[in-house]
Amino acid sequence: MSFTTELQPGICAEPDAVTQDYVFNHTMLRVKDPQKSLDFYSRVLGMRLLRRLDFEEARFSLYFLAHTRGEQVPEDVSERQRYTFGRQSVLELTHNWGTESDDSQYHNGNGEPRGFGHICFAVPDIHAACARFEALGVSFVKPLDRGMKNIAFIADPDGYWIEIVQADLNGAIGRD
Amino acid sequence: MSFTTELQPGICAEPDAVTQDYVFNHTMLRVKDPQKSLDFYSRVLGMRLLRRLDFEEARFSLYFLAHTRGEQVPEDVSERQRYTFGRQSVLELTHNWGTESDDSQYHNGNGEPRGFGHICFAVPDIHAACARFEALGVSFVKPLDRGMKNIAFIADPDGYWIEIVQADLNGAIGRD
Repeated sequence: MSFTTELQPGICAEPDAVTQDYVFNHTMLRVKDPQKSLDFYSRVLGMRLLRRLDFEEARFSLYFLAHTRGEQVPEDVSERQRYTFGRQSVLELTHNWGTESDDSQYHNGNGEPRGFGHICFAVPDIHAACARFEALGVSFVKPLDRGMKNIAFIADPDGYWIEIVQADLNGAIGRD
Repeated sequence: MSFTTELQPGICAEPDAVTQDYVFNHTMLRVKDPQKSLDFYSRVLGMRLLRRLDFEEARFSLYFLAHTRGEQVPEDVSERQRYTFGRQSVLELTHNWGTESDDSQYHNGNGEPRGFGHICFAVPDIHAACARFEALGVSFVKPLDRGMKNIAFIADPDGYWIEIVQADLNGAIGRD
């Protein structure tokens, strides 16, 4: 009897075999100013830009980022497209042209009306990572030393929440 | 001269070495009814439940799902915690107890106020996948045959948008 298949109402114990090649590829967030967001996600969080798509008529651009971990990202557009959309843990940033200079603000999902909550990065050493974020002037939604132990939340340039965790901590939380 | 490092204002060409062990671990969405959502993400999209955390005092539960691709998910809680929070492309569903029977509705980020957009799954055959979703009675936000080619959007039980793509299509879109 396994945790996954037995105890959870709703869970399909044996998903259709065709779904086993599905990949949770990316999460899309709208950002006001791509220059600020690309700086934040590359310099602070270490992501690399895989693909940029510009749609001139509709006046928006898409930026796809991920941690490449030394993998060779294909230079060829068609190959790079396949690499970008076939892999896991891609972040897509949508920039509607002009938002960088107007006074609009995107909704981070955690005030009313609520919905989307956050994205999360795991780091090898959460204390070192949070000290580094602090030194870089990153905004904290929840610093490490307040409330729940071993979990921090920082904010990106648009105010989206980013949870910071360390995979080998918090093993004792929860029952299952 | 590489695409990644040169042409993009804001991009940090050589991210700090410490960031190369950071992992974009998960995306969190609030859901009204975990039974419906677990059914949808496991049966329709093939994800497996890795971890469930219940917080009785604060009256909420967290469900962490991912495609495990035949990997052995550890039974031991502490090991399973490490597996869950160390890997890529995890989906966290937050259930605030009671929402399944009230008339609240979560905001999917695409009406006003906008912010979060969608999550995306890549599939090996987008035509087969969309035919399957249709046969399963899944709601389409954008069917394959309307508007932009080779991209579909379906909706999860809370109305969150889920983009469906096939990694080896659309190579010619965009300039970079």
